[in-house]
Amino acid sequence: MIAQTPEPTYYAVIFTSVRTEGDNGYAAASERMVELARQQDGFLGVESAREELGITVSYWRDLDSIKRWKENAEHAAVREKGRRDWYRSFKTRIAKVEHDYGFEK
Amino acid sequence: MIAQTPEPTYYAVIFTSVRTEGDNGYAAASERMVELARQQDGFLGVESAREELGITVSYWRDLDSIKRWKENAEHAAVREKGRRDWYRSFKTRIAKVEHDYGFEK
Repeated sequence: MIAQTPEPTYYAVIFTSVRTEGDNGYAAASERMVELARQQDGFLGVESAREELGITVSYWRDLDSIKRWKENAEHAAVREKGRRDWYRSFKTRIAKVEHDYGFEK
Repeated sequence: MIAQTPEPTYYAVIFTSVRTEGDNGYAAASERMVELARQQDGFLGVESAREELGITVSYWRDLDSIKRWKENAEHAAVREKGRRDWYRSFKTRIAKVEHDYGFEK
């Protein structure tokens, strides 16, 4: 669902990827990473969708919480598997959310 | 595909949405909006995926180009249809990309 983020500013990590063929343990690891991310200090929410392209946007309080998450040992090990087994290509963009607005029926 | 964006900094507009039932002209309008966005000064690329949640991230040179795109008359009319017919809820976040890195096999 749409992440319930606080008033800006906060940070977004936009992770865009193209997968290789087959699951190769991806689905379970992906679920585990979301569960682990939710436990991190400064985590604000996550949104995800995949067709040919996968887009996952995670939201964080500040750059420090993103840095700590990147240094998390389990997360780092899974990222290595990602480069080796799961992704044909990816791009990670770290962005400061300056403004947001929404709509709900 | 993954957008070929220049070196940061640049801007991302992260548009996350939940659709209503049925097409109601959405697919054609969505395609037209991407075509129109590509013609705008300052447009750098777009990435899109939809499952239950739809995520479209468009990239722009600066806040001015985002503002001009928002004021584009055809785009504004289509946004109105979006609120009325296509979206149950959405959130738009405007974010400054400060850092990026990628990987390609």
